[in-house]
Amino acid sequence: MVRTLIEARFIAVPGPATVLPSERRLAEEFGVARMTVRAALKLLEADGLIRSAPGASYMVVPPQVSKGPTLSSFTEDAQKRGWRPGSRVIERTAFDADARLAATLGIKPGDAVYQIGRVRTADDTPLSYERVCLPAAFVPGLIDEDLTGSLHQLLADRYDIRITRHERTITAVNVDAEQAELLGVKEGTAALCVPHIGYDQNGRRVEQVHALYRGDRYEFSSVTYLRETNP
Amino acid sequence: MVRTLIEARFIAVPGPATVLPSERRLAEEFGVARMTVRAALKLLEADGLIRSAPGASYMVVPPQVSKGPTLSSFTEDAQKRGWRPGSRVIERTAFDADARLAATLGIKPGDAVYQIGRVRTADDTPLSYERVCLPAAFVPGLIDEDLTGSLHQLLADRYDIRITRHERTITAVNVDAEQAELLGVKEGTAALCVPHIGYDQNGRRVEQVHALYRGDRYEFSSVTYLRETNP
Repeated sequence: MVRTLIEARFIAVPGPATVLPSERRLAEEFGVARMTVRAALKLLEADGLIRSAPGASYMVVPPQVSKGPTLSSFTEDAQKRGWRPGSRVIERTAFDADARLAATLGIKPGDAVYQIGRVRTADDTPLSYERVCLPAAFVPGLIDEDLTGSLHQLLADRYDIRITRHERTITAVNVDAEQAELLGVKEGTAALCVPHIGYDQNGRRVEQVHALYRGDRYEFSSVTYLRETNP
Repeated sequence: MVRTLIEARFIAVPGPATVLPSERRLAEEFGVARMTVRAALKLLEADGLIRSAPGASYMVVPPQVSKGPTLSSFTEDAQKRGWRPGSRVIERTAFDADARLAATLGIKPGDAVYQIGRVRTADDTPLSYERVCLPAAFVPGLIDEDLTGSLHQLLADRYDIRITRHERTITAVNVDAEQAELLGVKEGTAALCVPHIGYDQNGRRVEQVHALYRGDRYEFSSVTYLRETNP
């Protein structure tokens, strides 16, 4: 079936959005009639896998990670989509907290902090960049660990720390040149900037995270209710 | 006090972010010493009202609307910040729902729908663009009303419909030329794209909304919790 051929060849691959070849070229490539190709494309469009692109062609709709109202790690999000999660560690440093970071993490200015910067990948495609700061006293030796896997899992396994709550803010930003390179997108591309603070099972602030998610690959879903003034 | 002068002249105004004049020019304008200006700037920076800009100058940090986890209307958000909310009505049309919109709104294909497009302003500065679709049967005559105020208030007052729940998704997009003009920003600026569906007090789907919020003026805050697999 031509639909399956098109899917296997152009769609079932993570990575940047792709423009499909023209109907004529697809017909040549698969050795079928143009009408057959057109019918297959209409089916794929109806299923939301491709969409019309300028110039009468089709673009592959990149699969999105949908973050729900529940706290989930990058590793879990990727695995739910059937992707192989990975990390490229950009930075691992220790330094003394300034007054502002200390206030954010609930520690004293001058207390040691670890900072870990990672590009998070799905099947080797960068989807987000996260810079995490943690009080070193809570996680001694953390920056010497293998940091390519789930940080939350590592915190649980080695330090008995479970991140049970995130306070987060979501804004939209145009990525700068450096961020663009890390995320594999063009400078100026829209991204979701999501600073958040993670609390452990004892209510301690354990991580301050600056996360940058590719706008074409992430969405945040939630339900909001009216606060009744007259209950 | 120089700080107050700078605030009144450059900061306490909605509108696009402004680059402050140099210390020297501020000193001239206010007839004070550069040291005095510098001290005032440091105070404003510490309070988060301005931030360093490339070229050793300062930029005004635009005041942001912080959308919390509770359902709130544009009008309420603006009033909470002390701004005068307004609307520029771009579009008011009636048409028959296609299959997709009908499914979204829980009505039948061919049923009449009203569509209202508005630029929402705060003290006349555009902050968001909203396109709302509503089943005409729920709100007969709505598009002939004055639509420059709160739509939720109008629904409550005239139709006894209270929007009590929103299901929303948040993504980041680069605005196109048309959206840029509506929002008063440059083409390609990052914006928060927030499609959402509004339910009334009886659980009926009453509005399908495509909202586009300026990335430099909006943020969405929430708290997420870990779903315990072993409670």
